[in-house]
Formats: sequence, C-alpha cells, structure tokens
Amino acid sequence: MEFSAEQIAAFLQGQVEGDPKASVHTFAKIEEGTPGALSFLSNPKYNSYLYETESSIVLVNRDLVLEHPVKATLVRVENAYESIAKLLSLYESMKPAKKGISPLASISESATIGQDVYIGPFAVIGDNARIGDRTQIYPHVTIGDGASVGADSLLYHHVTVYHGCKVGNRCIMHAGSVLGADGFGFAPAEGGYEKIPQIGIAELADDVEIGANTCVDRSTMGRTFVGKGVKLDNLVQIGHNVEIGENTVMSAQGGVAGSAKIGAWSMFGGQVGIAGHITLGDHLNCGAQSGIAGSEKGGQTLMGSPAMEHRIWARSAIITKKLPDMYRELQELKKELAALKATIKEQNV
Amino acid sequence: MEFSAEQIAAFLQGQVEGDPKASVHTFAKIEEGTPGALSFLSNPKYNSYLYETESSIVLVNRDLVLEHPVKATLVRVENAYESIAKLLSLYESMKPAKKGISPLASISESATIGQDVYIGPFAVIGDNARIGDRTQIYPHVTIGDGASVGADSLLYHHVTVYHGCKVGNRCIMHAGSVLGADGFGFAPAEGGYEKIPQIGIAELADDVEIGANTCVDRSTMGRTFVGKGVKLDNLVQIGHNVEIGENTVMSAQGGVAGSAKIGAWSMFGGQVGIAGHITLGDHLNCGAQSGIAGSEKGGQTLMGSPAMEHRIWARSAIITKKLPDMYRELQELKKELAALKATIKEQNV
Amino acid sequence: MEFSAEQIAAFLQGQVEGDPKASVHTFAKIEEGTPGALSFLSNPKYNSYLYETESSIVLVNRDLVLEHPVKATLVRVENAYESIAKLLSLYESMKPAKKGISPLASISESATIGQDVYIGPFAVIGDNARIGDRTQIYPHVTIGDGASVGADSLLYHHVTVYHGCKVGNRCIMHAGSVLGADGFGFAPAEGGYEKIPQIGIAELADDVEIGANTCVDRSTMGRTFVGKGVKLDNLVQIGHNVEIGENTVMSAQGGVAGSAKIGAWSMFGGQVGIAGHITLGDHLNCGAQSGIAGSEKGGQTLMGSPAMEHRIWARSAIITKKLPDMYRELQELKKELAALKATIKEQNV
Repeated sequence: MEFSAEQIAAFLQGQVEGDPKASVHTFAKIEEGTPGALSFLSNPKYNSYLYETESSIVLVNRDLVLEHPVKATLVRVENAYESIAKLLSLYESMKPAKKGISPLASISESATIGQDVYIGPFAVIGDNARIGDRTQIYPHVTIGDGASVGADSLLYHHVTVYHGCKVGNRCIMHAGSVLGADGFGFAPAEGGYEKIPQIGIAELADDVEIGANTCVDRSTMGRTFVGKGVKLDNLVQIGHNVEIGENTVMSAQGGVAGSAKIGAWSMFGGQVGIAGHITLGDHLNCGAQSGIAGSEKGGQTLMGSPAMEHRIWARSAIITKKLPDMYRELQELKKELAALKATIKEQNV
Repeated sequence: MEFSAEQIAAFLQGQVEGDPKASVHTFAKIEEGTPGALSFLSNPKYNSYLYETESSIVLVNRDLVLEHPVKATLVRVENAYESIAKLLSLYESMKPAKKGISPLASISESATIGQDVYIGPFAVIGDNARIGDRTQIYPHVTIGDGASVGADSLLYHHVTVYHGCKVGNRCIMHAGSVLGADGFGFAPAEGGYEKIPQIGIAELADDVEIGANTCVDRSTMGRTFVGKGVKLDNLVQIGHNVEIGENTVMSAQGGVAGSAKIGAWSMFGGQVGIAGHITLGDHLNCGAQSGIAGSEKGGQTLMGSPAMEHRIWARSAIITKKLPDMYRELQELKKELAALKATIKEQNV
Repeated sequence: MEFSAEQIAAFLQGQVEGDPKASVHTFAKIEEGTPGALSFLSNPKYNSYLYETESSIVLVNRDLVLEHPVKATLVRVENAYESIAKLLSLYESMKPAKKGISPLASISESATIGQDVYIGPFAVIGDNARIGDRTQIYPHVTIGDGASVGADSLLYHHVTVYHGCKVGNRCIMHAGSVLGADGFGFAPAEGGYEKIPQIGIAELADDVEIGANTCVDRSTMGRTFVGKGVKLDNLVQIGHNVEIGENTVMSAQGGVAGSAKIGAWSMFGGQVGIAGHITLGDHLNCGAQSGIAGSEKGGQTLMGSPAMEHRIWARSAIITKKLPDMYRELQELKKELAALKATIKEQNV
C-alpha cells in the first residue's frame, strides 16, 4: 500500500506544501522518521523535529508557521492529531480480516454461529452459545455454555467468557481478559467461609473495549453491567454487581469493588480504587492512585487517597513536604510563647 | 426448577406470610424483581423496595415490621442473608456437573486421573500429574509435570498449575490464575542480573479459592503456602516463600512480597501491599490501598500507607485537608508572636 | 542426582568442615532442613538455625564464627548467597530440557522454526512467525502472525505474543503474560470515543524476564521497548510507546503509563505508578506504592505518592501520625496568644 501526498491531502481535505508525488508506505514518529514514512506534528513540544525528520511526508496543523526550510513534503490540515487517527484507521481497515472456522476449534453442535465469522484453532464454543456476524474469535478463546457475543466483535487470544455472559456488538476484548468469573462473596461460618454462589451474569454493552488480563466479575443475582462505549485498560478489576455508565474510561490497574455504581463520561487514572456500594455521578475525573471511599456527585475532579477535590489535594500535597518544618516551628513557638508568658508574669510580679 | 413459598419455608424453617402456593423459578435483586422471582431483604437501606417489588416471594428477617401492605408473599426467617446463601447453594448444587474426559484433551500416559473427573477440550495434563476424584478441569487448563490437584476441585479456563505444584481438595481456581510461576529472585552481577532458580513449589491447601488472573509464585526452596480456607480475589499477587494462615481473605489487586508470613482469619481490602520478610498476626484487618511495611501483631485494624492503627489514620486523614489552613495559621502566629515580643521589648526599654 | 560435600566444595572453591562424604540430593531452607538436603546461611538473623538444622550440608560464609558444635557438615565459601545461586543454576541446568514439536500444535506452513525447539500441545505459531534455536514454547502459547522469538528463550503456558511483536534471545515469559495488546488510545468524539489504531509493535530485548499475567502494550507507531536484561515481576503494566533502559527491575503490580522513558539499572518496588510522557534518569530507586508524576533525574531514592526524596518522605511520614496533636496544639497556641495579647493590652490601658 503506497500513497502520495496529493492522495492523502485529498482524503483529509488538506493542502500539499512540497512535492505532491512524494509517497509513503508506512507510519513513523516524527523523531524516528525514515524515507517512505508518514509522520505528524501536533504537540508544539516536538516542533524542532520537523526540520530534521527523514520522513517523506508530515501532517501539520494548518496554522503552523515554519521557522526554517523543511525537507519533507507537508500536508496542512485542520487538526493533525485527528487526521493521523483517520489515516491509521483507514490503514487498519485495508488489512484483510481473519476469516474462516478452524477445523481445530471445538464448537458445540448446539451453538449458533453467524455469517463471516473467524474462529481460530483451539477456540472452544460451548453449548447454546451464540456468535454474531463478522465476529473474530482468536485462538484459545473460550465462550462458555449459553454465552453470547454480538456482531463485529473481536476477542483476542485466551479470552474467557464464562457461561451465560453477554458481549455486545463491536466490542474488543484483549488477550487474557475474563468476563464473568465469580464475584467475591462469602458468608463467615464457624469453620471457615461459605461461598455465596454467584448465579447472575456479566454483560458488556456495545462498543466496549477491555484490556489484556482485565476481569469483570459476574453478579450474585442479576448482572454486572459495563455500559455502551466504556473503555477499560489492562489489568482492571470490576467487582460483582457493579454498573458503569456510558463512555467512561478507566486506565490500567484500576479496581471497582462490588455493587458500586459509576457514572457516564467519567475518566479514572491508573491504579484508582473505588469502594463498594457507592454511587458516583457523571463526568467525574479522578487522578491516578486515588481512592474513592464514598459516594460523590458528578462533574468533580478528585485526587488522593482518600480522594478529595483536586485543588484541596494539590495544596495539601505541597504542604506535606513542609510537615517536618511545620512541626519544628510549632515546637519553637510553644517554647517562645511559654518564655514570653514567664517574662510577663515576672514583670508583673 | 420451580419452588413454592411453603417448600422454601420448610427448607429454611421459616414462616409464610401471604400465598403459600406462590412460586418462583429464579432469583432477582429486590429492586429488579420480576414475577416468578425470589428476592431477599437484609439491609434496612433497601426497605422501601419491599413495597414496590414485582418479585413473587421475598425472604425477610423474622423481626421486620411492615409499614405498608405488601404484594409479594413473604417468608420470614432468622437471617435473610444466610438463608439466601443457602438457597443459592441449593440451586447451584442441582445443576448437572460437567463430566467426562474430552477426546481433545492431551493427557500424559503417566498421569493419574480419579473417578468422575471432567477434563475439557484442549486441557493438558503433564507427566506424573495427579487429578483427584470428581475434580473439574475446564478447557485450556494446564497441569504441569508432577503437579497434583485434589478431589472435588474446580479449575476454570486457562488456569496454569506449574510443574510440581499442589492444589488441595475442594479448591476453586478462576480463569487465568497461575500457580507456581518463578519467584522474583535475581542476584546483581556485573553485566546484569543473574537469575536465582526457583526450585521450590507453590501449594494451595484445602478449600482455597483464588480469583481470575491471580498469581501465586513458587518458592526458591521449600514451598509458598496458601492455608486452608483462604480466599483470594482477582489479580492478587503472592510472592515466593509467602505463607498465609487459614481462612484469611484478600480483596482484588492486593500484593504480598516474598517471604512474608500472614496470619489466620485476617481480612485485607483491595489494592493492599504487604512488604517482604515481615510477620503479621492473626485476626488482622487492613483497609483498602494500605501498605504494611513492617511486622504487626494480630487483632488490629490498620489503614494507610504506611499503615497505622485505624483511629490514628482517621484523625490524620481529616486533618490532611486542613493542612493548608494550618500552615497559614502557623505563619501568622509566628508573625504575631514576633510583633508581641517587639512590643514588650519596647515597653520595657 | 546426589552430590558429596567434597564435590560441592570443589565446584565452589570452598572448604569442607565435617564429613567430606556427607551427601545431598535436594535443597531446603535452613529452618526446614531434612537429612539429605543442602541449606545455606547468609543472613545473620538466621544464625541460630545452624545449630538445629537437620540438613546434611550447610553452605556458610568463610568468616562465620561458630558458637556451638554443629551436626551438619559445613562448606565454607566466600559468599554463601552467591554460591547457593550457582548450585541452584547447576541443578536446574541438569534437568532435561523439553524437546520436540507436539503433533497437537498448530504451526503455520510459512513459520520458520529453529533447531532443537520445543513446541507443546495446542500452541499456535502464526504465519511468517520465527522461532529461534533451542527456544521452548509451552502448551497454549500463541505466537501471532509475523512475530518473532529469539534463541534459547522460554515461553510458559498461555503466553500471547501479538502479531508483529519481537522477543529477544534468552528471554523468559511467564504464564499468561501478554506482549503487544493495543495501547490505550482513544480520541473523544461526539457519540463516544474513537479508537486510535495501534499499528506499532512491542519488543523485548535479550535477557528480559517478564512475570505471570504481565502486560506490555504495542505502540501507536514505532515500538514499545523493554531493554536488555530488564526484569518485570507479575501483573505489571507497561503502556504503549514506553521505553525501559537496560537491567531495570520492577516488582509486582507496578504500572507505567504511555510514552514514559525509564532509565537503566533502576529498581521499582511493588505497586509503583509512573505517569505518562515523563523521563526518569538511570540508577533510580523507588519504594513500593510510590507514584512518580513528573520527570526525575537519576541516582535518587524516591518514595510516596506523589513521590519525593526518600529522606523528606520519611520525616513527613513520621509527622503524619502526629498531625492531630499538631492541630490541637496549634489551636491552643492561638488561644494562648490571644489571651496574652489581651492581658498586655489591659496592662497598658
């Protein structure tokens, strides 16, 4: 696949500056450019690389002002970052999709398989399971009995979908992710704990993407529910009975304890912890490593463990370093004040 | 499977209030009740749902006082939460267990397989491995050479039991969990690190449950040992040479560094970290995201990173938000005191 | 395999003290010694066990002074810890390596397989993939299309190497680890997020070891790169476009966000978090549960979240417990000072 600067400009409604016949067959970061590669420049921090890059074509913002001559051919567009995302998507969509059902897969006779499905070697499709059209099931995936996956979804290697669980349309599940393991529920008993069976399910709505080795537990009753368009990074833990609103994004290693309700359009940084049985509003932002212990209304920016409003946290964090000085000053003040009182008392005697 | 209110009451030694012939075939949360479903009410926070629920039968505590008429048939029991656990267990036990050995599994000729074992497609049982009676080995599980699993255990999809490791009776290992990967041991050398071989094993005693993608490392020598009845949630890390006492419970994403000794009947919240080479007493409680850096005696409730007695932590946490004010006040006090001293000095001159 | 004290001493250039014919066939911790076992004593904390151990041979440091008679035969060496590592490595190297290609593996006809390779049952080797000489591929491993693994590497059960990714020579990947899942990149759009395709790769240089269920994401363009000799423990997350310098070590459950650059010869404790787009110098030490939010020069010891120089953190951590007292004292001082001012004012009226 080779594209010329004028073809790219036509696709992106941009303007060529340089050789319209310059052509590229791959992508590269601007600081690692090579002849035949397309790069982009969006963050002004990287401006200096524009004048040194070996890339043949660079996408730049329409309003960029050049400070030196440039060897590469430029394509000026409204928004270089969005444009590169469009080109990458185009590039991806031109790759041939995996197709066909491997004779090495184990597919139950009672399973329902849609049109143009890919099922790789050693995949297991359980009894009464359903796979939608054009969905791709990579090697070693297990779809449990009675589980279902919608259309146009992509389940990478070693994904487990437990019995009865549901995956929507256009979902992506990365390698090793687990949907529907038992929620963590035990009743204390005399000789040890008794397991509380988890007879509910776990469900991903449409357009959900979950990262490698991420776990979404099945509920005790009813369902654990991950809303439409939610994106979970790698190694995330979603406890049983949790509900996550639409288009919420959680970075790697975040954890949500059982029965928490998370709002829509929220963003959670890496390694965040959210307590069980609480409710969070929509449009919440929460910084990395924070711990949210109670219900919070939406629209806030939270930080810290326990989490607090970001501005309060920032001020406290600065002063934390000054604590030893504060402690010393406080002790000195006490002494001084005591001395002063003694002086005054003396004077008045 | 359909049950009437009087059958349920008989099983639980409860009393019917309403239609003894009311029948159910499924379970539902009280706030999501549907006709034909059984719900329970234990937490008073949810009392209001009792008067609106569509569930046909609701289990309630014997002493609940009704404030309005109720449409559902009630079954009054001593403890509604324990009773629902009993019913769920009954329900689960009536499901047919998976049985039979898939012709698609790879089982070493030297392995010993017990009675009524289930082994799913693409499972691998290594040389001299042993599987106890009635144990269920799901698809894609690997049991390494010389490893053993006791009776009545349940190993879900993609579980790995490394060579020589041991799983007890009545254990549950969820999808993707790993028993016996190498402990993290390296000796610094000139050109890099040299690996210290980990020739010990990892062992789960009876009645242990470990969550999806949880890892328990093998020891350098001897064994890493997870005691009887221990429950580990998803994505937990247990380092090499660690020992965990009976019936201890650890929530998701907790981590225990090498050679730590953890007591019995303890509870650790999510994302807790425990340092290596320390000893913790029995009946310890530790809040989420805490970090325990040194040995601690049992019977305490710890919180924070570094962890401290919970009451001290709670008071410090409140004051952390006031730090900026404290800092300001301290500076003002210093000024005031200096001014006062100057005044007094003047007066005395 | 049985060895005598004189054989061991010859191998380690040590001296026998006791019976040169004493023989051992296994290893044991000194506190768990049994007849026929070899133990070592390095940490003085464990000295007392020397006089009670049932082990037949104990490696000790050359300068150890005995306080009582010892039943075991001693072998005195320069460094008992390094010596045991050497013996363990010797012991490991004598185990027969797995060999041969299972007829139950699925290997693409276009793949290139080196000499003396082991490929276990149900492994999948994709189109145009390359496996180097003597490399061992355990059951259920997937090597994606166009991916490559060097020579003398060891990939345990359920490892996933995504398409196009690269593993060096002498690498070890533990069970369930994932190389090359998509980086977490999305562009906000009106109805939800749009995925930014991740067309780069992830690469492990030579001598890298990564732990069970650890994830290293592929980059948007170019590569995510884990340098020579790096050791990552279990459940670690490495985001897209990250670069890690040589011989850096990261303990379990650490996380590195996208595009961070980590130096060489650094050590990170468990559950550490590192923000994206920052640069860390070489020889950095960072304590467990710390959070590094900005670029830091090398050679430091950091601690806390947000991370600070270790000494400052230690002092602040001590005073954090005193915060409630400080707060109370501050309020008292304010009152006293006000009272004092009033007194003085009165006196001067």
